[in-house]
Amino acid sequence: MTSIDLNADLGEGFGRWQLTDDEELLSVVTSANVACGFHAGDAVTMRRVCELAAERGVRIGAQVSYHDLAGFGRRAMDVPAAELAAEVAYQVGALEVFARAAGTRVSYVKPHGALYNRVVHDAEQAAAVVDGVVLADAALPVLGLPGSHLLKVAEQAGLPVVTEAFADRAYTERGTLVPRSQDGAVITDAAMVIERSVTLARSGTVVSHSGEHITVRARSLCLHGDTPGAVELARRVRAELTASGVRVEAFV
Amino acid sequence: MTSIDLNADLGEGFGRWQLTDDEELLSVVTSANVACGFHAGDAVTMRRVCELAAERGVRIGAQVSYHDLAGFGRRAMDVPAAELAAEVAYQVGALEVFARAAGTRVSYVKPHGALYNRVVHDAEQAAAVVDGVVLADAALPVLGLPGSHLLKVAEQAGLPVVTEAFADRAYTERGTLVPRSQDGAVITDAAMVIERSVTLARSGTVVSHSGEHITVRARSLCLHGDTPGAVELARRVRAELTASGVRVEAFV
Amino acid sequence: MTSIDLNADLGEGFGRWQLTDDEELLSVVTSANVACGFHAGDAVTMRRVCELAAERGVRIGAQVSYHDLAGFGRRAMDVPAAELAAEVAYQVGALEVFARAAGTRVSYVKPHGALYNRVVHDAEQAAAVVDGVVLADAALPVLGLPGSHLLKVAEQAGLPVVTEAFADRAYTERGTLVPRSQDGAVITDAAMVIERSVTLARSGTVVSHSGEHITVRARSLCLHGDTPGAVELARRVRAELTASGVRVEAFV
Amino acid sequence: MTSIDLNADLGEGFGRWQLTDDEELLSVVTSANVACGFHAGDAVTMRRVCELAAERGVRIGAQVSYHDLAGFGRRAMDVPAAELAAEVAYQVGALEVFARAAGTRVSYVKPHGALYNRVVHDAEQAAAVVDGVVLADAALPVLGLPGSHLLKVAEQAGLPVVTEAFADRAYTERGTLVPRSQDGAVITDAAMVIERSVTLARSGTVVSHSGEHITVRARSLCLHGDTPGAVELARRVRAELTASGVRVEAFV
Repeated sequence: MTSIDLNADLGEGFGRWQLTDDEELLSVVTSANVACGFHAGDAVTMRRVCELAAERGVRIGAQVSYHDLAGFGRRAMDVPAAELAAEVAYQVGALEVFARAAGTRVSYVKPHGALYNRVVHDAEQAAAVVDGVVLADAALPVLGLPGSHLLKVAEQAGLPVVTEAFADRAYTERGTLVPRSQDGAVITDAAMVIERSVTLARSGTVVSHSGEHITVRARSLCLHGDTPGAVELARRVRAELTASGVRVEAFV
Repeated sequence: MTSIDLNADLGEGFGRWQLTDDEELLSVVTSANVACGFHAGDAVTMRRVCELAAERGVRIGAQVSYHDLAGFGRRAMDVPAAELAAEVAYQVGALEVFARAAGTRVSYVKPHGALYNRVVHDAEQAAAVVDGVVLADAALPVLGLPGSHLLKVAEQAGLPVVTEAFADRAYTERGTLVPRSQDGAVITDAAMVIERSVTLARSGTVVSHSGEHITVRARSLCLHGDTPGAVELARRVRAELTASGVRVEAFV
Repeated sequence: MTSIDLNADLGEGFGRWQLTDDEELLSVVTSANVACGFHAGDAVTMRRVCELAAERGVRIGAQVSYHDLAGFGRRAMDVPAAELAAEVAYQVGALEVFARAAGTRVSYVKPHGALYNRVVHDAEQAAAVVDGVVLADAALPVLGLPGSHLLKVAEQAGLPVVTEAFADRAYTERGTLVPRSQDGAVITDAAMVIERSVTLARSGTVVSHSGEHITVRARSLCLHGDTPGAVELARRVRAELTASGVRVEAFV
Repeated sequence: MTSIDLNADLGEGFGRWQLTDDEELLSVVTSANVACGFHAGDAVTMRRVCELAAERGVRIGAQVSYHDLAGFGRRAMDVPAAELAAEVAYQVGALEVFARAAGTRVSYVKPHGALYNRVVHDAEQAAAVVDGVVLADAALPVLGLPGSHLLKVAEQAGLPVVTEAFADRAYTERGTLVPRSQDGAVITDAAMVIERSVTLARSGTVVSHSGEHITVRARSLCLHGDTPGAVELARRVRAELTASGVRVEAFV
């Protein structure tokens, strides 16, 4: 029987500001990418999300980011490797306190936003992120894009790697994501997102932007939770996966 | 044979800015209060200080603070208890990553600046700091002022407590520190600081502001490292303690 | 004919996070208290709010705060007077750029959150805020609570002062606000808020928590915009004021 | 008689941390690039530097930066144009308050660190900086590198432009700066820095890295103040310029 992990970004509020519906998302996903205070996420929120995730058996991952609250981690930064490595470790450590206090552990690391995109192709920053993960825990899986520099370097460093796919993003025929700046990059039709989710999980394929069937092997599907209707769509994706005979379960 | 611990604040730079001479101080003290990023201390500095401390067998403590870089943690803040507790745990966790990576552990927690002063008398914030320490590690010693609310609450919570004294600060006859706003609050005469250090370590007493001999039981002496000549004075204090038959060693 | 100003806090998002419905509020109020980046408000938001306010003839005020994004300016801080004064001036100056670029000016200053509450009774911080305003512009009105230290000091410094009242807050018989921690401090019944608004504007009185008619002279009513239904209520307050023969217009 | 302006970065401390010797530098330079709080510089420091500069007749410039205290503005960031423009205006406005309070005005804008380097070649960010300057004051001169995109775009926008040169940096034969990562990029020999200063001021030429005499027309020389001996060197540069018949005076 095929199985798939569902991951989403959580805890992305900061102080007075809320963004993600953490309670609802935690009833849908199997892996929670928890913001660690660098692009979002304050200590109270981190604690609460870890407690809720632990109660529901959802895996906790450290969603590490550039240090940029003002830009929500979405602005690429030329951070020297030593700084980036240390900042990644810092974030994992901060989250680990709350995961442990909730009776569990940080189970994986996933870069956020501009850092996620940068380490697809930037070998130096990819290596720095991996150095940071190793500094924190040399057995911690890294979640990322298949074919990315990040996963290559992580594998070379002996870290477990987990691939993910996006049912609501268009793919090129080479299996990379169509940049958000292009028309059609984001798929908003709910039925299509659900269908692509099932196909990705069952057959490891997806129809590219240009109409070809391409292979996208992913152990996890990334769902989004910060737009209106997103939680409801995530719920339907999960229901349809289950109905299609796909077991929804964490990758670790 | 009497023994005493010497602690000092370290790693209090931030990015481009330096403050404490960490290398020099680490050759004098037995316990390093490492800034955790909230009032000072960036991830690179935290990592380096932990590595140096581990090499030299100096104990690493988390110097936790209000979240206030602009004020260097010296401005008292009415932080709600739940926030303060989570922020304390966050800081301990972030530092723990670097202590572990250096082959050691965070061995104690000491509040910094305005938070240090506040938890002497503020029962709610004292309890919040203790909650934060317990959240991080229910066996972690707390370093503070004898008679402070912090140490009382820490003891009630089952945490080990460690008392400290200040050889360069004037004491009232009740054994509290003379506020910095008063004349003579800080003792700048090197010979007097050295003599008071030895007396504090050997007999657990000090001469108060008003001339009385008072009891100040302290397992640790706090040295300062952020003023000109401070490191040299610290070195002389340590030498004189040793020459007087006091063993200088960490409290844990 | 009686007239009243309506003010509300605007531009209280930060980067990715939104809070206040600025567009809607700007169609109701006559004075906009714009966040200046210290508790909320980024440069892009400040610019946009100033442009919209200028288009609609809404007065722009600097909503100055402690420097505390994590706490949304709601945590009292012991900021030394010289720092607080300079920080107030800094915020007014930053907002003034966008007000001028939109063809208008910053027309008044109103402290936010914990600073607002602190300067009701803290003479030193009240004086520091006034110093900051004078530094920025010695003719700038200050908006605050009748009887507050802030307004007293502002008057002594020769600044115009503007009093405000809260139709959705309970008053003590002495004319001060019932603290939020007490039951009944916030009035949520819409009809009552509307009725109190009209009475405050027309007769300068309100019924206190204990049932007495008390005098609350206010040139401005503060409306809230950050809760569900708040904008709709604000709209009804304005409509009812107009229907009752009160002219709704800015105080300057 | 030839004249030259001397500019340097000032006010680059933050809270507890000091970096530049502002008092000393203000007795040497004719133009002060004052940090505005985004990479360094707090409100108290900005106020004090403006007061000192005004007393001594030193021109005040806004040293605008990416919003990055942790990286001291030295990490290039992909900030969207609208954000960057608004952030530049914000910084100019904040500084303007203190310049006006000191009886003068912000007389020019100079980007700092990674932003300075980026707008040499990045047309979009160069345009965003210019937009920000225009937003603040459409008559404000921009200080930058001859041949940079920044100065081109500024000229097109009708802003006065001022070119600067670096006596302590090696130049390529094309007149650009040798990157700091290359050997010999920074000239540390004091006598050579002084000689190059005089030659740059008198003849508008400098010897390139490869030994050729090249033309570098600059209305201002940038001096550095954040390294040991820098202030003393700056003083000697100024003395030698005067002795060589060059009038040292602000460009505006």
